[in-house]
Amino acid sequence: MNAYVLSIGTELTTGQVVDTNAGWLAAEMTRLGLRVVGHRTVADDPERIRLAIAETMASSEFVACTGGLGPTPDDLTRQGLADATGCPLEENAEALRQIEALFARLQRPMGDLNRVQAMIPRGANVIANPGGTAPGIHIRHDGCELFSLPGVPSEMRVMFLQYVVPVVSDLAGGVRTAIRRIHCFGIGEAKVGERLGDLMAPDRNPAVGTSATEGVITVRVVARGGTESEAEDLAEQDLVVVRDLLGSAVFGSGTDSMESVVGRLLREAGVTVSTAESCTGGLLAKRLTDVAGSSAYFRRGFITYSNASKTDLLDVSPELIEDFGAVSGEVAEAMVVGCRRSSEADFALAITGIAGPTGGQPPDKPVGLVYLALAGEGGVEVKRALFGEHLSRAAVRHRAASVALNMLRLRLDGAGASA
Amino acid sequence: MNAYVLSIGTELTTGQVVDTNAGWLAAEMTRLGLRVVGHRTVADDPERIRLAIAETMASSEFVACTGGLGPTPDDLTRQGLADATGCPLEENAEALRQIEALFARLQRPMGDLNRVQAMIPRGANVIANPGGTAPGIHIRHDGCELFSLPGVPSEMRVMFLQYVVPVVSDLAGGVRTAIRRIHCFGIGEAKVGERLGDLMAPDRNPAVGTSATEGVITVRVVARGGTESEAEDLAEQDLVVVRDLLGSAVFGSGTDSMESVVGRLLREAGVTVSTAESCTGGLLAKRLTDVAGSSAYFRRGFITYSNASKTDLLDVSPELIEDFGAVSGEVAEAMVVGCRRSSEADFALAITGIAGPTGGQPPDKPVGLVYLALAGEGGVEVKRALFGEHLSRAAVRHRAASVALNMLRLRLDGAGASA
Repeated sequence: MNAYVLSIGTELTTGQVVDTNAGWLAAEMTRLGLRVVGHRTVADDPERIRLAIAETMASSEFVACTGGLGPTPDDLTRQGLADATGCPLEENAEALRQIEALFARLQRPMGDLNRVQAMIPRGANVIANPGGTAPGIHIRHDGCELFSLPGVPSEMRVMFLQYVVPVVSDLAGGVRTAIRRIHCFGIGEAKVGERLGDLMAPDRNPAVGTSATEGVITVRVVARGGTESEAEDLAEQDLVVVRDLLGSAVFGSGTDSMESVVGRLLREAGVTVSTAESCTGGLLAKRLTDVAGSSAYFRRGFITYSNASKTDLLDVSPELIEDFGAVSGEVAEAMVVGCRRSSEADFALAITGIAGPTGGQPPDKPVGLVYLALAGEGGVEVKRALFGEHLSRAAVRHRAASVALNMLRLRLDGAGASA
Repeated sequence: MNAYVLSIGTELTTGQVVDTNAGWLAAEMTRLGLRVVGHRTVADDPERIRLAIAETMASSEFVACTGGLGPTPDDLTRQGLADATGCPLEENAEALRQIEALFARLQRPMGDLNRVQAMIPRGANVIANPGGTAPGIHIRHDGCELFSLPGVPSEMRVMFLQYVVPVVSDLAGGVRTAIRRIHCFGIGEAKVGERLGDLMAPDRNPAVGTSATEGVITVRVVARGGTESEAEDLAEQDLVVVRDLLGSAVFGSGTDSMESVVGRLLREAGVTVSTAESCTGGLLAKRLTDVAGSSAYFRRGFITYSNASKTDLLDVSPELIEDFGAVSGEVAEAMVVGCRRSSEADFALAITGIAGPTGGQPPDKPVGLVYLALAGEGGVEVKRALFGEHLSRAAVRHRAASVALNMLRLRLDGAGASA
């Protein structure tokens, strides 16, 4: 079954807001066996919305549409659905009940504007929204199933999983697709391509491709088969080969992130970690604690932005800072040792560097120069990284935190020596 | 001039990667006076790429295309451009020189695969890529200008700003558009809509719309005029009215974020801040230090994830934690007082809460319950926030950090009493 993802909102066509919904929906729909033939984005314009709904419904069997269901006059999807299908809007008692119940639960008064959110095309089904005031709309029309969901990602996702997935599972059939992803760090995309070689031939099944995001190279294996298990077997066979070719650069798969993998390794080993950060300003600790259950292994973090705080909290001597500079391997080592000592954690990570855009002192200390240190079982390791000056402040900080996490991963994995 | 944004990559159509390029390009192109009539996304398939290039070039005067210029065999945009325009690929000496120079600068060997990145359709111009191995391609064909840029956001952005903007500025003319955005926090979207009233009428110029992201409500004013200054005057007039209607809920405009605004207020007042975080795990400090130049006002941060660390680092008494629980107004207050005392900053912020998905103890302490505290000139303020249990761990953490930043903003703005 062919499918379209349709995003509605002038904040999207003018680029004021990044559309995270389209990608999420595409991933879920692909997993369900739908063939997502395209994404489209249109502005809050009645005629463009009507046309986009009519065209995508006419050229596919499945449309997932987000946005334009809010309470304000620029929310035009309800009218667009009515115009595209010829089913006039009517106040829906079930939708109104759901909206009223939400306001009652939050102990807030319901505004008059919210009442318009109960208007639904005649004959359509209401999709309950447990997290917000906009009910979704399910229309079956001329051989196409259209699901209109709110643009707020958290609301949209719950509604898709609770309502849309069961409906689509009933409808989908035929060719099954299995998608697997493997993530590497500390290796370039071209190098990954060289190692994979013929696996990436264009006419091959599974299709193997690569993409790069923030220093992480992801290898994607898309296998097609007559049954779900046939597709999955094909994908798994490739995975074994890919892992073998890429070795310890592989840190995870699927929805793994560097932080979730490090968290799993820490939990499995029954050990704890603390952090000391200068230029990353809390990002490393934030990423470690992004993981649910991280209180099992994360102890404490020090954000020592000022020189005085490095001395007060981590016992870094002022003379060391004076002699080598705050951005130096010597200070990174002193930070990590002080952090581990004062926190009684098994491992400590420290980062000091120049995130930019200013503060660099080329040629010795350019923007993007970062020192990373790891202390714990196995000793103290200090690493110097030079991220290109073309990277943004945010990118330098993210890469620096990733390198620190990767140092801990390799140590915990026992692969540190060979990496 | 009509324009399209075209994104190429199976990682996008299958939703494995979120497309941040399309939104960024749409914003830049809108600012340049182009009318972005749509976004399209296609997979790494030679025929789909050829068709998408041909169709968007035929139906607009300007196409900005990203992705598919990498060194691996699944990078098919070069061939797609050649097929769509009928101009065969040739090795371009200038492109090859740029690729070789980059590898020389990084002191890394150039792989054979990278050589294919110098293949360019005959007659096209090379767009220099200062940050990576993929040169861009500029094609002028049948009344349409197409710019093909790499998918790596940092590379794409630099190339767009350095090469594409000057070319487009020469070409654009006619109606000018001025876009202004105002951001609010601590108020719902429906309430904003009610206050704005007739300003949001659909046929009005400027067009006024709202959108909601992570608790921030953004009001967008899009004005059209015969000249740039006419459009800007119209937008500015509306802005004055919108600000007046929304009062102290407005925290910024344009590219302002809560953290950049708080940073500006801190710098203007010549005061400093430190942080103490439990459930947000460093996110608050990370956001404060996302801002370039934050070392002028950010002193240090404590991430006291364990109870012992709250006592060791912030002098929170174990009895207080025992009596009221780590997630309580009493502990938040003790954290903020201890943080301010030990850091000698003018202001301190503290957060303790239950980010979930587990760890809640309903009904008294459900997931999403967060206590926030602010200490400094004006006294100590403690706030209780209950984020809905439908929110994700990431969303609870982000909202909690936003509420803390907003408390400091209102205090610094002198609006705390009236908010």
